[in-house]
Amino acid sequence: MARWKTVSIVGVGLIGASIGQALLRRRLADDVIGIARRQTTLRAARRVNAVTHTTIDLARGVAEADLVVVCTPVATIPELVRRAAEHCPEGTLITDAGSTKAAIVAALDNNLPRGCRFLGSHPLAGSEKTGPSYSDAELFEGRVTIITPTRNTRAEDFDALEEFWTGLGSVVVRMSPEEHDEAIGMTSHFPHLVASLLAGMLPEQWFRFTGTGFLDTTRIAAGDIELWKQILMQNRLNVMKNCQALAQELLRAAQALRDGNEKVVEEILTRGKKNRDALGG
Amino acid sequence: MARWKTVSIVGVGLIGASIGQALLRRRLADDVIGIARRQTTLRAARRVNAVTHTTIDLARGVAEADLVVVCTPVATIPELVRRAAEHCPEGTLITDAGSTKAAIVAALDNNLPRGCRFLGSHPLAGSEKTGPSYSDAELFEGRVTIITPTRNTRAEDFDALEEFWTGLGSVVVRMSPEEHDEAIGMTSHFPHLVASLLAGMLPEQWFRFTGTGFLDTTRIAAGDIELWKQILMQNRLNVMKNCQALAQELLRAAQALRDGNEKVVEEILTRGKKNRDALGG
Repeated sequence: MARWKTVSIVGVGLIGASIGQALLRRRLADDVIGIARRQTTLRAARRVNAVTHTTIDLARGVAEADLVVVCTPVATIPELVRRAAEHCPEGTLITDAGSTKAAIVAALDNNLPRGCRFLGSHPLAGSEKTGPSYSDAELFEGRVTIITPTRNTRAEDFDALEEFWTGLGSVVVRMSPEEHDEAIGMTSHFPHLVASLLAGMLPEQWFRFTGTGFLDTTRIAAGDIELWKQILMQNRLNVMKNCQALAQELLRAAQALRDGNEKVVEEILTRGKKNRDALGG
Repeated sequence: MARWKTVSIVGVGLIGASIGQALLRRRLADDVIGIARRQTTLRAARRVNAVTHTTIDLARGVAEADLVVVCTPVATIPELVRRAAEHCPEGTLITDAGSTKAAIVAALDNNLPRGCRFLGSHPLAGSEKTGPSYSDAELFEGRVTIITPTRNTRAEDFDALEEFWTGLGSVVVRMSPEEHDEAIGMTSHFPHLVASLLAGMLPEQWFRFTGTGFLDTTRIAAGDIELWKQILMQNRLNVMKNCQALAQELLRAAQALRDGNEKVVEEILTRGKKNRDALGG
């Protein structure tokens, strides 16, 4: 018998469909119920074997869930978790896969009806691509998933969720929702904004003079606008601080370039290379 | 008979060795003389079939050249071109592959001994990797190479150099050295500095929370420090202006985030995605 009888996935885009594929491929769930607003999304999720059943009716879709995973844009997560809690079996554990945690957890922690509990998750995996057709059963393999317990979190819920993500191949790290948002603000949300600003600065007549460097540096700017707007707004104060910090660094670099101060330029390049080399990949 | 009898390449790193490989693979040159300061570099260039002859003696290496291509770090190019001009056959055409053009061309234009002429080139190809072992005979295929003639440039020299790069698979574009530095400052030099600053901002305890987004956005920060310091210093006024412009954009974004101004954030993401989608790749 599989670890989970029924896992319901609300939102079967890139992340939701990858979770479903991984659960079925690894025989961790007997049934994976895909729930989405549009039949075209559900058809695509079936096509890539991410789900065993599908429905556009949230209430029916979560009715027999042992675990509900909400994989929708961050601004929609609290409302969908609440609706799931009203219709799933009493006392069901609900999690998400959103890129922000503080606002979502604050809205849901210790606050659900019928004995249901929410515990936040964030698998650090994804792509500038969206939709179930880009899903990948190995998306979480070797990748960190952050789980954000609070003082209200039960130990058995944490253990169950850790087992869930570990089963998909992830390395689980626990952090508070606030620590999560600060760290991921720097490693993901802020770089997205920088890539967007840099891509946006390029005049059209110079498009053909871009090489792999510019393309790599701005790749994530191709991401979905609505998704990323919601993420940036939910984590706006951390990203704001990063914007201010980089602006100061840029003005310091500008001063060094104006003065012909090679030492400062070398120091910037050295620190950047040291970190980037350490990251690998 | 090949188009060129003897091409001498001064500096057989990634770019120089790739030129040599492409010339030999495409039978565009009978002899390719590789010139470098170190025997280990020359041995590596021979190993990847980038050269037919090698020497650490510049004077001997260029003595029979029909064309000399200087592929060394930008700060060393003017001096090496001058030395090549003193020892190559009278009236030989000399070019380079440097990432900056204004300073190099200003130093060499209409200013060489013995009837030699310098005409600047910049193939928009490369990598954060360095050295002949990363060379690639197809590196220039389909890539733009900018040639920077001045009012002193002879039409036949331009034609010969255009034929040279076209022969390696490049699409040749002509620009003034100043236009080149302004455009490439924005598409290459400035993004390098941004990637370095961003990588340098990341605290070590968050290294493991980076995903493909951060890795892509900072990849070029792994480039050679000395090479890039020279490039940034040679093009410092253009890069300085870009730094100031991005700093302003970041402060505007910070203000919008502080105010919860979704419209500005959406506008930034929209402009960035529009440009990035247009670039492809």
